[in-house]
Amino acid sequence: MSLENGFLKGIIPPLVTPLLGRDELDTEGLEKLVEHILAGGVHGLFVLGTTGEAPGLSYRLRQEIISRTCRQVAGRVPVVVGITDTSFAESANLARFSADSAASAVVLAPPYYFPAGQPELLEYIEHLVPELPLPLVLYNMPSHTKLVFEPDTVRKAMDIPEVIGLKDSSANMVYFHRLQLFLKERPDFTLLVGPEELLGETVLLGGHGGVCGGANLFPRLYVRLYEAAVAGDRTRVEELHELVMQISSTIYSVGHYGSSFLKGIKCALALEGICSDFMAEPFHRFNAPEKARISEYLDKFNPIINSQCC
Amino acid sequence: MSLENGFLKGIIPPLVTPLLGRDELDTEGLEKLVEHILAGGVHGLFVLGTTGEAPGLSYRLRQEIISRTCRQVAGRVPVVVGITDTSFAESANLARFSADSAASAVVLAPPYYFPAGQPELLEYIEHLVPELPLPLVLYNMPSHTKLVFEPDTVRKAMDIPEVIGLKDSSANMVYFHRLQLFLKERPDFTLLVGPEELLGETVLLGGHGGVCGGANLFPRLYVRLYEAAVAGDRTRVEELHELVMQISSTIYSVGHYGSSFLKGIKCALALEGICSDFMAEPFHRFNAPEKARISEYLDKFNPIINSQCC
Amino acid sequence: MSLENGFLKGIIPPLVTPLLGRDELDTEGLEKLVEHILAGGVHGLFVLGTTGEAPGLSYRLRQEIISRTCRQVAGRVPVVVGITDTSFAESANLARFSADSAASAVVLAPPYYFPAGQPELLEYIEHLVPELPLPLVLYNMPSHTKLVFEPDTVRKAMDIPEVIGLKDSSANMVYFHRLQLFLKERPDFTLLVGPEELLGETVLLGGHGGVCGGANLFPRLYVRLYEAAVAGDRTRVEELHELVMQISSTIYSVGHYGSSFLKGIKCALALEGICSDFMAEPFHRFNAPEKARISEYLDKFNPIINSQCC
Amino acid sequence: MSLENGFLKGIIPPLVTPLLGRDELDTEGLEKLVEHILAGGVHGLFVLGTTGEAPGLSYRLRQEIISRTCRQVAGRVPVVVGITDTSFAESANLARFSADSAASAVVLAPPYYFPAGQPELLEYIEHLVPELPLPLVLYNMPSHTKLVFEPDTVRKAMDIPEVIGLKDSSANMVYFHRLQLFLKERPDFTLLVGPEELLGETVLLGGHGGVCGGANLFPRLYVRLYEAAVAGDRTRVEELHELVMQISSTIYSVGHYGSSFLKGIKCALALEGICSDFMAEPFHRFNAPEKARISEYLDKFNPIINSQCC
Repeated sequence: MSLENGFLKGIIPPLVTPLLGRDELDTEGLEKLVEHILAGGVHGLFVLGTTGEAPGLSYRLRQEIISRTCRQVAGRVPVVVGITDTSFAESANLARFSADSAASAVVLAPPYYFPAGQPELLEYIEHLVPELPLPLVLYNMPSHTKLVFEPDTVRKAMDIPEVIGLKDSSANMVYFHRLQLFLKERPDFTLLVGPEELLGETVLLGGHGGVCGGANLFPRLYVRLYEAAVAGDRTRVEELHELVMQISSTIYSVGHYGSSFLKGIKCALALEGICSDFMAEPFHRFNAPEKARISEYLDKFNPIINSQCC
Repeated sequence: MSLENGFLKGIIPPLVTPLLGRDELDTEGLEKLVEHILAGGVHGLFVLGTTGEAPGLSYRLRQEIISRTCRQVAGRVPVVVGITDTSFAESANLARFSADSAASAVVLAPPYYFPAGQPELLEYIEHLVPELPLPLVLYNMPSHTKLVFEPDTVRKAMDIPEVIGLKDSSANMVYFHRLQLFLKERPDFTLLVGPEELLGETVLLGGHGGVCGGANLFPRLYVRLYEAAVAGDRTRVEELHELVMQISSTIYSVGHYGSSFLKGIKCALALEGICSDFMAEPFHRFNAPEKARISEYLDKFNPIINSQCC
Repeated sequence: MSLENGFLKGIIPPLVTPLLGRDELDTEGLEKLVEHILAGGVHGLFVLGTTGEAPGLSYRLRQEIISRTCRQVAGRVPVVVGITDTSFAESANLARFSADSAASAVVLAPPYYFPAGQPELLEYIEHLVPELPLPLVLYNMPSHTKLVFEPDTVRKAMDIPEVIGLKDSSANMVYFHRLQLFLKERPDFTLLVGPEELLGETVLLGGHGGVCGGANLFPRLYVRLYEAAVAGDRTRVEELHELVMQISSTIYSVGHYGSSFLKGIKCALALEGICSDFMAEPFHRFNAPEKARISEYLDKFNPIINSQCC
Repeated sequence: MSLENGFLKGIIPPLVTPLLGRDELDTEGLEKLVEHILAGGVHGLFVLGTTGEAPGLSYRLRQEIISRTCRQVAGRVPVVVGITDTSFAESANLARFSADSAASAVVLAPPYYFPAGQPELLEYIEHLVPELPLPLVLYNMPSHTKLVFEPDTVRKAMDIPEVIGLKDSSANMVYFHRLQLFLKERPDFTLLVGPEELLGETVLLGGHGGVCGGANLFPRLYVRLYEAAVAGDRTRVEELHELVMQISSTIYSVGHYGSSFLKGIKCALALEGICSDFMAEPFHRFNAPEKARISEYLDKFNPIINSQCC
């Protein structure tokens, strides 16, 4: 599916990858999850991102996810595919497979093993784009890649027409606003924010949407928040933003380490009967005590969201 | 001057420290600068912060700045004083001096040499508060202190009534919004944002104001942006926010290293005839080529700001 | 080839990967390089490490390197294979391929995308070992993986008999010596050091050898330094260590960024007529000016090394 | 006391600061501690370093420590004084006070609040030296200052004759050896290592000594290890180094956070009846359970050290 006007916007959830084992897809769960999310009115789907545990999955499995998701979505919304890798050749391989599966675009964070300099990152993009059969969205994700696409590098990459957008997961809004200054030269360029806690302000101040992990669980909440911000309805934005913050400080904050968010979302999806909560190494699913807390939180939030976001 | 209702809000510029030498105050410049800022309608003044180069100044000089500024302000707005130090005893000394000079509150970032743990930071605050004759504002400044007041630590510190607010300079808005969740228990607690690039969204989403370095130069711009955000005037917020971003990517982005912001502001103040641009080590003022660029930027922005923010 | 007594020691160079293109092996260069290194009397060979640019290469190419190198070495020394990956399943795949190619052991750094905690890293090893048909050497490489196998995690991993050693590239010798304390419980465990600048002291103080990148170029230098340290000949150690430091501060220090070491070695190998200097993204080979400097350095060091390390 | 030949070498313990309260010196403890250390045969004394908790102490107290220690040492060994500060003027003040107290040299780590660039750090040294009445030792301490004196900066600073040495506490021995290459141009320049775990190899490979915190407790152990390394007695070095490692992994490893080392040493000194274990904020002394463990360790090590290091 080609992007309409080459443009991505709105809520594009980073799809959780339902697993039965470390190298086995929960195919039934995947179907249910895709339908659950699409029913919420989202504007696209992003597979094989950080929330999708992509770097932890085998290439065989990544291909299975791409083809099954694209088939299931069947053109209802654009599907964008994460091709971030430490290997240029494997990124290009995934992009070709994505195009063959009728995906709409690919997403690339910096190759994250070697400490590349900014000119090297720019050259990486310049070399890679001609190998890609799909438009490219950059992905700034310093907490995981330990490399930043610095504003000046992004500005230079924006000279390449096939680079159509950037998703920023840094949580640093000064960075985000700095990139927004470049949009005058490229009004077709999309700026999406990663952390859902920042969706409201991003869209209020001219950003184009969000890649909200929580939209796996509560897709309609994020769609409504996006719509309120587009409409400039500040009261409604504040109200829904407050709800997002409460979810963030409960469901995503059980357990330790940087993985609480992922574990919480997967656990909640399993409790909702949508898909398995199995996680690929280096993580594992929540045990009973954490599960009980997530369950309580769901009992609290489900009625509120149902009443506020119908 | 006591804080009215114990509450700080609005635009509280972090005062630049005008210097004639590394240990000599530009007293005339200080007077002009204070009057220039107050004329812009700001709601308070923060002396001896990062923008004030406080850690680079001698204790003698810090005391001189406190007493002269308080005398000059003479109760027109609250003056808050940075007492951040690696030494508990010196922080307490500065706080006592501030109270004697009729300051309104003191501001403390984590003691920044030893890698203290979160319980140690909490205990630090608990031990320090009884030694302080003034209310305390916490200051989260990870880029310079390399320590964070983690949300859970702030929540616990909010049990202490004398801790009346927090200024966050992390630029991480997820962090900021996480703290906002705690305000229900402490409606008298102030949340201020450091980077002026984030003032608009902070206030739109319920924050109380900003400690904007740029307000040394263009105080009215930040006051107007604050007022627009309080009023929920999104169009005006977008317009003024865009201006703030343009200033940020020009005047603050000449030169290298983390000090561009400081050097740019001081250089611009000197060009405007307000105060000297001398800087204490480890920095030095801009040379002629950088000065010329700052001058061009001023020529560009002065008329725009005069027409838009009168 | 099984490890004799299950034990690795001595000089085990991390093989540079000779490339004709980003996904094409320089097969002739690989043969020459392997013979050049083995002629220097090394005690093993490590393929697909950081020096081998492994994370930047496709899986197809990684397999080709494994099988060609093992065939070329033909049991003359043990071959150990890097299987570090962000995907558990791909690490296991590479290990199975390595066993089929008659490699002797595999080497694993922490999976380096997600910020895993120490218990998660230990569990990773515990889950992976049963999937591996070869013994496992851990690889501490914080500058690239941003994760550390902390001493306590290593101590626990040493309870697994199939974990036979650790290579430390942190350059932090306090870390290294801390691990040495655990050797009493596991006298069969090998501790190897990564940075060749630390080979002398490592072996003088009881370490078992080094994975010296420079041994691609000057294998005999590192073998002689190792032998001198084993023999406790401090004068000879100091003399050869000094030579290593001079190489380190010249050949490895041309150009910018963290990649100077890799580029310098590959450039020197090309100048010596051993193999191509092509590099996979995110890097590229040196241009003429840097090449000229490397050439001068080779002219300086070749005669010294020939006379001192024959 | 002038430095003999301008040269520091050997074991120069970083003096623990005995305290009765956060701003009150344990003067009796200080006397006992100085005598205890000097009785061990050390070659100098370093006051107001990290181990001395200097950044946590008031300036009044720092002056008291300088004058009392210099008076107590009375020229028996050189006393060097830490003047590291974020304020240039305060560093100069402390240096003048040190000279008046007859100290031999001063020690400076980078000013550690602002993120200064390398040229700014070099300029800092160039500006400061003319203000100092005593020779200057640089102090590389990245874990606490978050700034590194990069090798090239050190090389340039070595052009200043008054810069007479460097203490490296990075634990990165590649860095240390890189600096050693510069000694040919400045044979009078001293390179000292911070972590005592690296004393053996440092001196075996040509370094000049160590600033060993453990020498507050067991001065003779480090003196003997230094002597063995100077003599090239590798067996004795290995034996004493092993003892140092055991102390490091027991006495310095009780408790959490980066402060275990400091707390362990102070606790042990109190148990030995030498001085108080009070600590200035942000730390506090060990409680009974940790104290009991330190006591056990002392019971274990005291007889071993007495028999091996008499």
